[in-house]
Amino acid sequence: MDWTLFLTYLGACGAAAATGAMIQPGAWYDGLNKPSWTPPRWVFPVAWTSLYFLISLAGMRIGHAPGSTQATALWSLQIALNTLWTPIYFGLHRIRAAMVVMVCLWLSVFLATISFFGVDFLAGVLFLPYLLWVSIAGALNFSMMRLNPGQA
Amino acid sequence: MDWTLFLTYLGACGAAAATGAMIQPGAWYDGLNKPSWTPPRWVFPVAWTSLYFLISLAGMRIGHAPGSTQATALWSLQIALNTLWTPIYFGLHRIRAAMVVMVCLWLSVFLATISFFGVDFLAGVLFLPYLLWVSIAGALNFSMMRLNPGQA
Repeated sequence: MDWTLFLTYLGACGAAAATGAMIQPGAWYDGLNKPSWTPPRWVFPVAWTSLYFLISLAGMRIGHAPGSTQATALWSLQIALNTLWTPIYFGLHRIRAAMVVMVCLWLSVFLATISFFGVDFLAGVLFLPYLLWVSIAGALNFSMMRLNPGQA
Repeated sequence: MDWTLFLTYLGACGAAAATGAMIQPGAWYDGLNKPSWTPPRWVFPVAWTSLYFLISLAGMRIGHAPGSTQATALWSLQIALNTLWTPIYFGLHRIRAAMVVMVCLWLSVFLATISFFGVDFLAGVLFLPYLLWVSIAGALNFSMMRLNPGQA
């Protein structure tokens, strides 16, 4: 366990988490039509907190794996896109623009997962729950877009 | 020149740039008291666009430098904090919370620059304009906080 490296990656996840903590859904979100399978509100912070630990662990592992140059760059890409999504969705209330960010985020997590499996098997496994969760988040974003055609 | 790696890092910078492009200063910013040395508005996108290219180039170079495990993690940390600052400042209008983010960003860029010099001299040089600019941005954020005591 390389604590300095883990905490550096956890710090990057902390920046992404700060958007979710500081930019709240609020009345705008309450007023939107939601699909029946929308998870209850408390699920989101629990899921993200758990995921950010797994994401940081994966970062630490690939950092020490040989041949991980492209994999670490993809780690950077996903965390920047992850930090961007909340301000666009909950901050600007732009569901469609957020969907574009979500597609980019999903692709970056997908490519990162494949890349991780190539250099460190456990790092790839650590990213699978994240890939699953952004798939659900993407489906949710898409449903919100379809169920609220009047929104930006 | 490793184009795939460069474009991956440039993509991460693109996510950070998107906050600046989509979250505009607006009437709130116009109404704030500003220090006399505030750069004109057009300087910011020009400076950031140039910097994002240098930041991406530095990322590509350290990615290929031996012993850059911690340096690449610091690259991830700075881009996440960079993406976070604009939504807090121009999105939420929280100048004090943005100042906390700015201090973290400055520290991450400072540590990254030192770390880069240790593994690839040119990468360190490429981060110097960025370190200078976040120093100016930090001083500006601090002045705005002092000159607008009624703001959050």
